[in-house]
Amino acid sequence: MNKPFLPSDLVAPKVTTGPVQGSRKIYIVPEGALVLRIPFREIVLSETSGEPPFRVYDSSGPYTDSAATIDVEKGLPRLRDEWVKERGGVEAYDGRAVKPEDNGNVSDAHAARVFPTVHRPLRAISPSPLRGGWREAPGGGSPQSPELSTAPPSPSPQGGGEFSDAATPSPRLRGEGWGEGPQQAPAQAADPLSVEGTGGGNLLTQLEYARAGIITKEMIYVAHRENLGRAEALARAKDAIGDGESFGAEIPEHITPEFVRDEIARGRAIIPANINHGELEPMIIGRNFLVKINANIGNSAVTSSVEEEVEKMVWAIRWGADTVMDLSTGRNIHTTREWIIRNSPVPIGTVPIYQALEKCDGDPVKLTWELYRDTLIEQCEQGVDYFTIHAGVRLPFVPLTANRVTGIVSRGGSIMAKWCLAHHKESFLYERFDEICDLMRKYDVSFSLGDGLRPGSIADANDRAQFAELETLGELTKIAWAKGCQVMIEGPGHVPMHKIKVNMEKQLKACGEAPFYTLGPLTTDIAPGYDHITSGIGAAMIGWYGTAMLCYVTPKEHLGLPNRDDVKTGVITYKIAAHAADLAKGHPAAQLRDDALSRARFDFRWQDQFNLSLDPDTATAFHDETLPKDAHKVAHFCSMCGPKFCSMKITQDVRDYAATLNDKEIGMADMSEKFRKMGGELYIDAEKQ
Amino acid sequence: MNKPFLPSDLVAPKVTTGPVQGSRKIYIVPEGALVLRIPFREIVLSETSGEPPFRVYDSSGPYTDSAATIDVEKGLPRLRDEWVKERGGVEAYDGRAVKPEDNGNVSDAHAARVFPTVHRPLRAISPSPLRGGWREAPGGGSPQSPELSTAPPSPSPQGGGEFSDAATPSPRLRGEGWGEGPQQAPAQAADPLSVEGTGGGNLLTQLEYARAGIITKEMIYVAHRENLGRAEALARAKDAIGDGESFGAEIPEHITPEFVRDEIARGRAIIPANINHGELEPMIIGRNFLVKINANIGNSAVTSSVEEEVEKMVWAIRWGADTVMDLSTGRNIHTTREWIIRNSPVPIGTVPIYQALEKCDGDPVKLTWELYRDTLIEQCEQGVDYFTIHAGVRLPFVPLTANRVTGIVSRGGSIMAKWCLAHHKESFLYERFDEICDLMRKYDVSFSLGDGLRPGSIADANDRAQFAELETLGELTKIAWAKGCQVMIEGPGHVPMHKIKVNMEKQLKACGEAPFYTLGPLTTDIAPGYDHITSGIGAAMIGWYGTAMLCYVTPKEHLGLPNRDDVKTGVITYKIAAHAADLAKGHPAAQLRDDALSRARFDFRWQDQFNLSLDPDTATAFHDETLPKDAHKVAHFCSMCGPKFCSMKITQDVRDYAATLNDKEIGMADMSEKFRKMGGELYIDAEKQ
Repeated sequence: MNKPFLPSDLVAPKVTTGPVQGSRKIYIVPEGALVLRIPFREIVLSETSGEPPFRVYDSSGPYTDSAATIDVEKGLPRLRDEWVKERGGVEAYDGRAVKPEDNGNVSDAHAARVFPTVHRPLRAISPSPLRGGWREAPGGGSPQSPELSTAPPSPSPQGGGEFSDAATPSPRLRGEGWGEGPQQAPAQAADPLSVEGTGGGNLLTQLEYARAGIITKEMIYVAHRENLGRAEALARAKDAIGDGESFGAEIPEHITPEFVRDEIARGRAIIPANINHGELEPMIIGRNFLVKINANIGNSAVTSSVEEEVEKMVWAIRWGADTVMDLSTGRNIHTTREWIIRNSPVPIGTVPIYQALEKCDGDPVKLTWELYRDTLIEQCEQGVDYFTIHAGVRLPFVPLTANRVTGIVSRGGSIMAKWCLAHHKESFLYERFDEICDLMRKYDVSFSLGDGLRPGSIADANDRAQFAELETLGELTKIAWAKGCQVMIEGPGHVPMHKIKVNMEKQLKACGEAPFYTLGPLTTDIAPGYDHITSGIGAAMIGWYGTAMLCYVTPKEHLGLPNRDDVKTGVITYKIAAHAADLAKGHPAAQLRDDALSRARFDFRWQDQFNLSLDPDTATAFHDETLPKDAHKVAHFCSMCGPKFCSMKITQDVRDYAATLNDKEIGMADMSEKFRKMGGELYIDAEKQ
Repeated sequence: MNKPFLPSDLVAPKVTTGPVQGSRKIYIVPEGALVLRIPFREIVLSETSGEPPFRVYDSSGPYTDSAATIDVEKGLPRLRDEWVKERGGVEAYDGRAVKPEDNGNVSDAHAARVFPTVHRPLRAISPSPLRGGWREAPGGGSPQSPELSTAPPSPSPQGGGEFSDAATPSPRLRGEGWGEGPQQAPAQAADPLSVEGTGGGNLLTQLEYARAGIITKEMIYVAHRENLGRAEALARAKDAIGDGESFGAEIPEHITPEFVRDEIARGRAIIPANINHGELEPMIIGRNFLVKINANIGNSAVTSSVEEEVEKMVWAIRWGADTVMDLSTGRNIHTTREWIIRNSPVPIGTVPIYQALEKCDGDPVKLTWELYRDTLIEQCEQGVDYFTIHAGVRLPFVPLTANRVTGIVSRGGSIMAKWCLAHHKESFLYERFDEICDLMRKYDVSFSLGDGLRPGSIADANDRAQFAELETLGELTKIAWAKGCQVMIEGPGHVPMHKIKVNMEKQLKACGEAPFYTLGPLTTDIAPGYDHITSGIGAAMIGWYGTAMLCYVTPKEHLGLPNRDDVKTGVITYKIAAHAADLAKGHPAAQLRDDALSRARFDFRWQDQFNLSLDPDTATAFHDETLPKDAHKVAHFCSMCGPKFCSMKITQDVRDYAATLNDKEIGMADMSEKFRKMGGELYIDAEKQ
């Protein structure tokens, strides 16, 4: 990054800023962790509702904060950088120099402008202290999780140092004059590990800290973030606490930092958080937390620009994307990614083999371990939070795909299959997996073990190639855990509804409950142009069964690259799937939003209904198509029935009628008896069905 | 209809005609029933595919037949009129005169033009011979169904008369000079019943014929229609025959007319076919047939016109709507409906209480049995094929909705609740149900027993009001069956995923396996503007569990009336849900289309992929956004990976490689052994999981 290309383009990316309609950004500063500001979005309801503002999870970062100043040239504030340094065990160093091939040997004429600010990368100063690997839940050595505790978050015995608010965050980080060299301990950094006495600086990843019983700021942050301050809301509406079928998930009514730590220690959840992604607002991916969604962006050899991609990222998180994958494959890959990461408050994932392939003229046969490793280092230093690595595509499995209808559709999977066949060798990703772990652990880059053999059609779903790879991913999970790395597992793909559940069951079993991260799945192949829907069906179902993060599919899947509108459609569709899954799992707070919106609908509080929806702009626009007049926003009717008659109004009569019956009569217990009296001999107690 | 209003509008409705992209209309004339022409759509595949044209079910009627002349002024040919008359037992008579209130007392200035052609209505000349009511499957008295018979459809012993092709259909029916008066038997009509000897003309409804062991032309028609000529296709691709979890559905590999008859006799399927809907191309609704979808259209007091509604119907069936409900509530209701039915090849459903309400100034309290009955007669004579009747909304159940978040959201349900409360009387629909049956039986109008107490929010799902009503619908089903009427049951609504399955189970139990017809269900309340998706998820699932027809929900649900684009989006979304359900149920032929499209995708036959999709126009447009050049339609790459590299191409290398292994090695049985040899000790047989 020290040798910028000649700028061919002096325009800074334009991004969408400002609050979502009807909402305002708020921050909660948790007791005992005063350096943390947890972001939420509050939907302000009309006075007539008599209801407090409704708080929702907010992945959109400072872009929706009307008080924030956004300068894409500078990138977002790197508040988290302080947390990493005060924990210690890291060193700043001169990063790998950017090479022409990092950007596809783009000519100066086509080179995108380099991100102006340079940050020196951090890395671990010592190897992982962890040994032993596979930890059966409950995570060995980690204290029992007080899963049902409703106490406010409190410092864990070992983690006390984490709660000092002495170290107030410096607004911006200067890359110089601090923590030079492996031996020099960070000047003002508190070293919580001295408390623990396991040798300061030996721990680096969230998994290592969790296993050592230490609660990091990231863990505290996500605990509060997941709670949504729902304690009060649930107190107001006890009956809204979800029932549901959890299929073994155990979501506590209140998430404590200790619960987060324990889930991470067990490997059941991850916080994708590269130590070089200081701009990150930490989030957690796990079956016992809110179901998350990922949005894929990225340019290709055929289309798109840096500007578009940065805006796509900002646009995607505005509507609720929890993580973003940059799948760029064309020129300017390195530069595009730098702009994205420096401006991203959400974890960024990549598929490093894509860039590695660009570095050898798109010829998989020319791929080498050295070239791949160099690409990993490049991306580790930039701050990529998770890597998709297709180390489960092994030579012996490749022939299993020969008779498939659609062969190998995973791009990374087919690259590795090609390499294995061309050299008739086992995959270097598989054989060098230890080295990959050691490298990723130094930066706490999480694994997203890729499903390179996922089915690309209904015909190929759940075949032996797919499940053979899944077993291998389970073996690799053990190794990565032993090395101190966080892991999630990627899943299909194209799967008909009746074959979805077994995918979840096999994954939990094979991969020791590591978080599952699936692409859809698409439940039919026959609707190109609508694959956000064919896959939204499968995503909702597999999310219900236990998938922790759903990778979105846009309407352009199989047809082209998504534009800005497609990204929004994909994100909203997947927010629907994730929320439907939370409801069905019985997430204790999920139904609060459904109830709030339904109350607004029932009361004809149109504006509240729009603002409580996943997409207030579209809801408002659709309503206004038929009834544009502002008066109709408060009208007690809608275009479906018209002003003369309205079904909702009639229910008031019902309530008045019911009120005339005494409580005993209306009481559930006595209704059926009452029906018999009233000639309701047909009535049968619903509970008895 | 003899007193037309002054025409305020001389323009005939414009409708969309012409074939769907890449398809052609074909007709199959079944052996043994030469008067029948069964319509299909054939998707013509490119020569390079080496595949025959792909045949799909076609609900679009003559509008997509390039050889057909469409004249909306005349309406469609009334071929089915002959079938009804030759069966006998019917009489033509002077229909009820149209009254001003039938069109909401519209002023001449706002009156829509009356449909030009007048048809004298038909009705049964005798009461139903049926007695006894509830028939446990297998349908009493009906021969065992040869469910696995693969023999070509052959006349049933009793039904012989039905197969004569002497009566060639007259292209148009003249309403005069035929079958006057109750006693006069139809001139040239064969009387199959004389064969049966149960008293000629005593039978009228499809259920009555089915129970008498007689196979009607409608039954033969739907049998061939459901088969899609799939015998040959399945012979070509045995391995594509669906596995799947059917939850008790039993879909034979080949549908015979006798199987259709038996399913109808058991009450497990219906053919909604008013004897006055001569334009109808019969279709069947039942759990052991293809899952069907319904599209709602209709104007309201606020918006829309006759022209729009007729085009919406034509547009909806073009994209796959199997039935259409006209839910008009404003002025010109009668005239709008007449234009729709005379031009509709699919069954038309209505909610008669909507029009009845218009006839008493929108005040439910003023509703009377006489007014309602008169409305039923009006619509029976027009040819409406099924009525939604909310006879399960009983006075005793109304208080059960008092504590709901969204009370009663069914328009018909709330109308009846209001009436019951205002008069403190039991519903006249419930008390007069026998009379309603006798009336509907005369025209073979099918019941769609309405779920007036369906939940309108997640909070209200599966509550006691909903299930109390469902039990009542089960009782009413027995009565309707005893009266010779065909019945289906309406279902919710708003239901979270984990509460969907029990809805299906209770319905099957309570209603003797009568077909279930559900609205979605919506799996969350928080996405107005996207409720085609929130409900498409639930629709796919409940379709899998056994729902026979899915009522679509458009993006405008809760916000406004759907326009033409919304209708298409709703229909395509529900075609996805229905097909995903067929796949998951293991419908023997469902996967053929997925496989054909996936082969096209894998072979880069772009045009074939587009044409095989549910919406070729959109698929083509999306592809062209990124790669507009025609050259790219044959290019062996797409915009996702670009020309340099393509994952699909690599699979060819895999096949070449696999080819170098001998059959034994590649044989599934020996692969795992082979893996161990190759160091694949991690390999575990997927089947053993």
